[in-house]
Amino acid sequence: MEKKCGTLTVVGIGPGAAEKMTYEAVKAMEESDVIAGYHVYVDLVRDSFPDKRFLTTAMRREEERCRLALEEAAAGSNVAFICSGDSGVYGMAGLLFEMAQRTERGGEIEIRVIPGITAALSGAACLGAPLIHDFAVISLSDLMTPWEKIEKRLRMAAEGDFAIVLYNPSSRRRSDYLQKACDILLETCSPGRICGTVRNIGRDGETTRICTLAELRETEVDMFTTVFIGNSTTKRIGDRMVTPRGYASERQG
Amino acid sequence: MEKKCGTLTVVGIGPGAAEKMTYEAVKAMEESDVIAGYHVYVDLVRDSFPDKRFLTTAMRREEERCRLALEEAAAGSNVAFICSGDSGVYGMAGLLFEMAQRTERGGEIEIRVIPGITAALSGAACLGAPLIHDFAVISLSDLMTPWEKIEKRLRMAAEGDFAIVLYNPSSRRRSDYLQKACDILLETCSPGRICGTVRNIGRDGETTRICTLAELRETEVDMFTTVFIGNSTTKRIGDRMVTPRGYASERQG
Repeated sequence: MEKKCGTLTVVGIGPGAAEKMTYEAVKAMEESDVIAGYHVYVDLVRDSFPDKRFLTTAMRREEERCRLALEEAAAGSNVAFICSGDSGVYGMAGLLFEMAQRTERGGEIEIRVIPGITAALSGAACLGAPLIHDFAVISLSDLMTPWEKIEKRLRMAAEGDFAIVLYNPSSRRRSDYLQKACDILLETCSPGRICGTVRNIGRDGETTRICTLAELRETEVDMFTTVFIGNSTTKRIGDRMVTPRGYASERQG
Repeated sequence: MEKKCGTLTVVGIGPGAAEKMTYEAVKAMEESDVIAGYHVYVDLVRDSFPDKRFLTTAMRREEERCRLALEEAAAGSNVAFICSGDSGVYGMAGLLFEMAQRTERGGEIEIRVIPGITAALSGAACLGAPLIHDFAVISLSDLMTPWEKIEKRLRMAAEGDFAIVLYNPSSRRRSDYLQKACDILLETCSPGRICGTVRNIGRDGETTRICTLAELRETEVDMFTTVFIGNSTTKRIGDRMVTPRGYASERQG
């Protein structure tokens, strides 16, 4: 008789610091035989779980990482597959479900998803309360998405007066993408729109900055930065970026 | 000399279950003198912190709740103000920053925000991987927001092909709001668009359902339900709702 398949738990570990993990995320790692993930994230937890096996691949080798993890689980191991932030927001949960279909015995693997604190939430907490109400999350990476689609989303989010969170606002190859995004937002939003950036959320060297949309356009950010654009009612209160929870005054007036 | 002001920590406790809290959320409650919040959420943690004082108000008394918490902190107590889900997504962090300005000695209170797992993330994990890529979060409650603004956001989110999460999809007074929202989405999205609902996330009686947008239109949901509308590429894989992480095929083809 064939060995029973193991489980695959996709775990969002938050921005990195242990205190920003949930209890169930840590429990899932504790109960696993193998911890899999991008090597940078695995290195964050390696010392806490000295008795585990680790399975890592380099950046952009997502499919290989998922395939190896699914093969481990199919062979009987319980695998905790860790993602930074949330496992379901630009995380690997989707790819694992898709690839399980194409993996031998993949259908027998029990896949469970454990959410984590994504940068929209952890970054917002650093800035104050920039979201609070309806918001849109957009990645500026055009590695998997045509840039025209990203432009359209920026336009729609601005027209809908959403607070907006930008993931992957920059990389070496895409150093002018944030500027391009700001130009699109400026078609609809005023140059004085309140914005914020957070770098190294929850890690050493965490820095925040509040500025206007016009200033954001002139700002250089890196891939460790998350960008927040307020909605039309967002204000600066001291060193905080704060969005009211509605439009009560519009209703009263 | 006047007594030094205490601190006010706004804590996202996630959907309710202890295992879905972060370590820093629990630490903030442990280190507080007073735990404040809506009585339903305070009751979730009351037994875990028998030595604390508790400060609760009824539903919709948000301003009173914030005022009392700020007064406690101004008088020297360390207050943990708890919110379900995330403290910054339809949470009280924003109102507390706004009201601190109007509170005597409010400027001396150190306000800190601790994020938590919001229903968009915890609900997504129950359904599989419905977000994965760009998404928009919209509340259907028109208590603080004009319905026209909500309609506009639904239209823009659909036109931008965002995955969409609906909070507060229904209440006794607004029993037909989800139907109205679906009608707006159906102007742009196909009736076969994959959708999902999650009720009682992370609590007893948690239930998920995957259906089409046409079926969602005919579905009655309650205030304990979070609704997910996929983007144009979202698919059903077995009993899971899965959104691919991009549009790679468009780029290749």
